[in-house]
Amino acid sequence: MKHHPQPPLPFTTDSQLSVIARTYGTPLFVHSEESYLRYGREALDIPNAFGLAVRYAMKSNPHSAILKIFDRLGIHIDASSSYEVRRALAAGIAPGKIMLTGQETLQPQHVGELVEKGVIYCCTSLTQLKIYCELFAGSGQGVSIRVNPGLGSGHNNRTNTAGPAASFGIWRDYVPQAIEIASGHGLKITRIHTHVGSGSDWKIWEKAASMTLGIVQEFPDVTIVNLGGGYKIDRMDPEKSIDLQSVFSIIKRDFETFARETGRELYLEIEPGTYLSANSSLLLASVNDLVDTGAHGYRFIKTDASMTELLRPMTYGAQHPIRLLGKSGDTLRNYVVVGCCCESGDIFTVKEGDPETVDTVELPEADIGDTLAIMGAGAYGIAMSAKNYNSRPICAEAMIRSDGSHVLISRRQKLEELWAREFPV
Amino acid sequence: MKHHPQPPLPFTTDSQLSVIARTYGTPLFVHSEESYLRYGREALDIPNAFGLAVRYAMKSNPHSAILKIFDRLGIHIDASSSYEVRRALAAGIAPGKIMLTGQETLQPQHVGELVEKGVIYCCTSLTQLKIYCELFAGSGQGVSIRVNPGLGSGHNNRTNTAGPAASFGIWRDYVPQAIEIASGHGLKITRIHTHVGSGSDWKIWEKAASMTLGIVQEFPDVTIVNLGGGYKIDRMDPEKSIDLQSVFSIIKRDFETFARETGRELYLEIEPGTYLSANSSLLLASVNDLVDTGAHGYRFIKTDASMTELLRPMTYGAQHPIRLLGKSGDTLRNYVVVGCCCESGDIFTVKEGDPETVDTVELPEADIGDTLAIMGAGAYGIAMSAKNYNSRPICAEAMIRSDGSHVLISRRQKLEELWAREFPV
Repeated sequence: MKHHPQPPLPFTTDSQLSVIARTYGTPLFVHSEESYLRYGREALDIPNAFGLAVRYAMKSNPHSAILKIFDRLGIHIDASSSYEVRRALAAGIAPGKIMLTGQETLQPQHVGELVEKGVIYCCTSLTQLKIYCELFAGSGQGVSIRVNPGLGSGHNNRTNTAGPAASFGIWRDYVPQAIEIASGHGLKITRIHTHVGSGSDWKIWEKAASMTLGIVQEFPDVTIVNLGGGYKIDRMDPEKSIDLQSVFSIIKRDFETFARETGRELYLEIEPGTYLSANSSLLLASVNDLVDTGAHGYRFIKTDASMTELLRPMTYGAQHPIRLLGKSGDTLRNYVVVGCCCESGDIFTVKEGDPETVDTVELPEADIGDTLAIMGAGAYGIAMSAKNYNSRPICAEAMIRSDGSHVLISRRQKLEELWAREFPV
Repeated sequence: MKHHPQPPLPFTTDSQLSVIARTYGTPLFVHSEESYLRYGREALDIPNAFGLAVRYAMKSNPHSAILKIFDRLGIHIDASSSYEVRRALAAGIAPGKIMLTGQETLQPQHVGELVEKGVIYCCTSLTQLKIYCELFAGSGQGVSIRVNPGLGSGHNNRTNTAGPAASFGIWRDYVPQAIEIASGHGLKITRIHTHVGSGSDWKIWEKAASMTLGIVQEFPDVTIVNLGGGYKIDRMDPEKSIDLQSVFSIIKRDFETFARETGRELYLEIEPGTYLSANSSLLLASVNDLVDTGAHGYRFIKTDASMTELLRPMTYGAQHPIRLLGKSGDTLRNYVVVGCCCESGDIFTVKEGDPETVDTVELPEADIGDTLAIMGAGAYGIAMSAKNYNSRPICAEAMIRSDGSHVLISRRQKLEELWAREFPV
């Protein structure tokens, strides 16, 4: 993956970002309301045969300001834990707009409380399904289940969200048992959830959708099909991102064919996270130091950000475009851009998919005090970072509103908050 | 790396851990005061020629209870950031016992404040050195510098803390410039810090020590040599752990030879983190669900812990012994042990050094509600975890005191604390 020198900013300008960096300090995430709205509208606009709900996978960035932007657009919530459900409720999201599809098996009374509030509970294992069906036996309450359809790009690769090496969902062979559990409690399975994390290849998406519809054949009462998330945004090369219009044109056709053959008009749900949030936020970092390891070594830009703000490069070898603000690209140098943690892996420029190997990025000649924008940081940025490592307080976040003004949406953590939960021995 | 079925607990018993799990809930870190004391005493007991200071690398686990245990033993502090310095001071550590060797270049006034308090400041770059020397020009204040001696096991591997792909320390070719900066301000360099992260191989340690002494030759005023950390603990196979006695017998001999040849008796400092803390804490997790992917797939234990407590397997392919409490090892099964985050990489059993690939561990037949001990979690466990991902509150921590009693040392984070720093847009 080639880093382009001085990639363009996805929203705002060098000069506005410089003002924002001076106003709130760095490291700082800067979000764009307009960008969230744009991606949200794109997702709501996808072709569909018989209706669509878009659920924002809030694990990608659970800030209440972002939840509310999507809520105002009519986007619902995909919660991955009971904690996320409570966080969305606290942000003012209506319970009926939240669906929990989580790995935790909750205590029955907690499932009951959520469902009685109106939250939709999607059962991701036979254990969860039994708990749910026992709670609501004979009640007429619909049942949602997540199925692992068995599709995966490898047998034991961790990036699979489906297939034999994934623990998510009820394994396809156990579908008859799932039906038996529901019907044994006088309940009907009305929603099937699959999530195969299929990237940007429309052929894989077509296969995933047709597999899912094949599974739906076995569930006569299903009216809603949730295809989960995994709509790939290529942060480095937007042209390689998923073309939602094309992919969902194909899926729409499949749904129409299914309706002709079965008389069943299925409602579609999708759960994008990265697609909605990745390019709507960037991380501002200051150039804190410049060092090198001699003629045969590397030049390093040391930043005041780190794996405590953005862990994806270190964990997944993820690529993020990096721009040095306010500098011309006439003279370029190769730099390794590193974080400020005392951790050898705290590097922002690693080989794609190979976080063990240092890579460089071409940037204009940097000076201490310059500001870098590390882009594509909106999804699984602050949400998944190694917070408080090296006792670093969690950074602040700002939002550029649609009217062009900016505002702080999260204050920087106070240092003493790091040990506020400690007791003396 | 073969996981041994039902590995022994490093401290405590199945039944005490079961009581602790019931008392405080899971996920929970359980620390052992006695184990910290044992490793601390071992470190203080290493052979040395002309005196020794042991500094605990507090980034591995900065809890005040642990800092105080080591402080009472006479172990000093290695701080990796100014935040860690303030945290150690807040825990009651005397400033003179704290040395900051950090990647951040602080503002001159902050360097001044720390040094005037009595904190030792080790300059890790020429920029930091200039700031320090300008502040203390002609004052008689000693100067500490970290040097990158150029030793590393590969050219561009991120696990290096030294060598051309590491940004830590002043590159060896720039030693003359460092000397010039100090002498130009009427100051003497009195402490050399190197950290080559050398693992358990005594030959590499010998080479690292002799390289460091070679560098010290160039600094006539150096009286203290700090060899940093990197003393490898093998969590799976303790017999492969570093033998501190043997390694430091060799280094002691080198220091003695150096003294005979130069008349200079060098004081030794070391900065263990993992060595002091890795095996002194374990993570308790409950079996939350059991799922499988059919006859040709895997059996999974889903736990109520996750990458939000222990990130090392997912990031580094790190191996941690796992024991199912209170179960006999008569009938064993192969399990993939996974976390409860909606993240495909949230797996505790990955191939060694290859976090992309799922692995299994042999355990007794598990039941929902059983408790697992994930061992060797004391270093870079809670300290480096992906806190708050999936909006999970930070877990609680307990300590088994030397008298056998147990006490909560960190309460579980309250959910609403996760969004307490947020402002409405």
